[in-house]
Amino acid sequence: MLKQYLLTPGPTPIPPQIALKEALPVIHHRTSEFASIYKDVAEGLKYVFQTRNEVYVLACSGTGAMEMAIVNLLSPNDKILVASCGNFGERWAKIAQSYGVETIYVSVEWGKVLDPLEIEKTLKKNPDIKAVFTTFVETSTGVASDIKSIGKIVSQTNAVFVVDAISGLAGQEFRTDDWEVDVVISASQKDFMLPPGLAFIMFSQKTQKLIELSRLPKFYFDIKKYRDFYLINQTPFTPPVTLIVALQEALKLIRNKKIENIWNDCKRLARAARAGMQSLGLKLFAEVPCEVVTTASVPENIGEKIITTLKERYSVSIAGGQGKLKGKIIRLAHMGYIGKVDLLAGFACLEIVLSELGMDIEKGKSVAAVQKEFLG
Amino acid sequence: MLKQYLLTPGPTPIPPQIALKEALPVIHHRTSEFASIYKDVAEGLKYVFQTRNEVYVLACSGTGAMEMAIVNLLSPNDKILVASCGNFGERWAKIAQSYGVETIYVSVEWGKVLDPLEIEKTLKKNPDIKAVFTTFVETSTGVASDIKSIGKIVSQTNAVFVVDAISGLAGQEFRTDDWEVDVVISASQKDFMLPPGLAFIMFSQKTQKLIELSRLPKFYFDIKKYRDFYLINQTPFTPPVTLIVALQEALKLIRNKKIENIWNDCKRLARAARAGMQSLGLKLFAEVPCEVVTTASVPENIGEKIITTLKERYSVSIAGGQGKLKGKIIRLAHMGYIGKVDLLAGFACLEIVLSELGMDIEKGKSVAAVQKEFLG
Repeated sequence: MLKQYLLTPGPTPIPPQIALKEALPVIHHRTSEFASIYKDVAEGLKYVFQTRNEVYVLACSGTGAMEMAIVNLLSPNDKILVASCGNFGERWAKIAQSYGVETIYVSVEWGKVLDPLEIEKTLKKNPDIKAVFTTFVETSTGVASDIKSIGKIVSQTNAVFVVDAISGLAGQEFRTDDWEVDVVISASQKDFMLPPGLAFIMFSQKTQKLIELSRLPKFYFDIKKYRDFYLINQTPFTPPVTLIVALQEALKLIRNKKIENIWNDCKRLARAARAGMQSLGLKLFAEVPCEVVTTASVPENIGEKIITTLKERYSVSIAGGQGKLKGKIIRLAHMGYIGKVDLLAGFACLEIVLSELGMDIEKGKSVAAVQKEFLG
Repeated sequence: MLKQYLLTPGPTPIPPQIALKEALPVIHHRTSEFASIYKDVAEGLKYVFQTRNEVYVLACSGTGAMEMAIVNLLSPNDKILVASCGNFGERWAKIAQSYGVETIYVSVEWGKVLDPLEIEKTLKKNPDIKAVFTTFVETSTGVASDIKSIGKIVSQTNAVFVVDAISGLAGQEFRTDDWEVDVVISASQKDFMLPPGLAFIMFSQKTQKLIELSRLPKFYFDIKKYRDFYLINQTPFTPPVTLIVALQEALKLIRNKKIENIWNDCKRLARAARAGMQSLGLKLFAEVPCEVVTTASVPENIGEKIITTLKERYSVSIAGGQGKLKGKIIRLAHMGYIGKVDLLAGFACLEIVLSELGMDIEKGKSVAAVQKEFLG
């Protein structure tokens, strides 16, 4: 009978009309029915990615798609730039390292935002850099990177620009083509309102030369296989049929609502969440906060307790800090199917829990702050 | 309103009680609830695999798990033996080739069965072979390999024995530990009665040395990451939560029924399907037929037509030949949630379609042949 409230930055809640699609009888993938679904999905993904390029659907987590970008663009000893402001930025470097790719690292302290000029300087100093990897929404810190500015810088070089938009895409404004991003990856379990299990990847025309030259070994993640099958609206390997049928429904909902309206909703929810946190005396953690998850510093002695108490007492799930931020921050998501009422409920429960854990909290204050943003 | 009848060797139909689990609200994976589900699933998989070793759940198709076996066991220029009797056997060699692994190839004509003695001879001639790769049920031809005999041979060498049991596992008798198989891979969309999207992999103690020595690059498929997270009943990357919840239900159904009873059911269905095919004058294609899919040669001029007509007229899906067998054989599956009644219905429709396509078919004859096997 437990009613769960997911306010975590992935997985996020699934709308019932999408969830029910998952339960439909599975259809065979090598059929015209599936091909027509896949074709529709591919068009819907182009819309969400805001691109004219093909977007491929993969059966893996987002990390698999990150690896796919690396193994298809590079060769051993190639030099890349990883611009990192958190846990997921570091993952780019770790994958590259596993493949013997040389990484030049531009990083800032977790919670801070990357300076595009720093990336520009590094590219000038290292004209042999083949690709620049960064993160759109760094879920571990709640920071959004200035992809537009970085895109402008990288576009003036021979390097390609690769963005992990696993968090953020379909939530916060992201314009692949206009911002000159060459590879964008995303995944199903965040702003797409789907369960985990699917990842998405797009390659621009500029990447084609690197793809031809790439000598890193690959099979399951070989883009050429996906490209060949895309022509017949298929995937090279058996796809997660039920999740793709659910994806079709999610994309229909997104298209009907219009992506700009989703961006606006997330922006408003983010503003409200920030107001809520600050009204409780919690300092916002992100130097440039993103619009899909809000992070705030919490007293270290109760950091972990806040998460577990919310979960145990109210079945409200929010996330804590990862790695070196464990116990130091809380992360509250407002993306996908998480709406205004969920945010109000989340803050109402957070107030009670913070209070119980010894903080001096005026009851109702954060709810009022959130309400004000909604009504203002 | 279309009612679909899936008699294809993957995807296969999903029991409603499993399908409904897919539609349940998604839970967060970094929780004790998910850990307890994952722990239960891991135990259930050990039972189905008939092993005492850990079985890991992956987010990918079966091919991803095949690649995982290769990249974790080998180093560049290592020598392996691929024993192939069809399309999926060849895939082992293709993946190995992508990674610069030297492949010695033992193969037989498609439709024929591998001779374990041929593998023994090749191993004696090449004592530096690190691993032997083969296929349990070669879905492309319907042949089952003699894994027990090959296991006995390989166990007497330093090589490890890797089996693609994507088809067959949880349908036809397979005893990982007793048969001395070192790596077994499988996937969700065949005998497990689940949609595609999950793969499974097991490594034996004998593989540990090779895993330590392996220098092929890897990240998403790095077994060490899965091993570390297994200790806390987790996966290293966001798992397909809804499919894993459905897997828990599937494993419960399998355990309740007992694996030996499933093996017996498939054996009986296979006997009936073979009798049905032969009663129609169709020659069985597999030299040693497996027990989860039955293949038969068909007149080439109507080969493709049989599949499409069955689909268009009766929404009955069976599979045709792959690659060089296109148009030459039909493949009718009897695994997972496909039961006696489905087989009777399938043959009843097949009779009509073969008749319409010009074959001299005595109506009811194959149904009678199938009935006889069920009642006998």
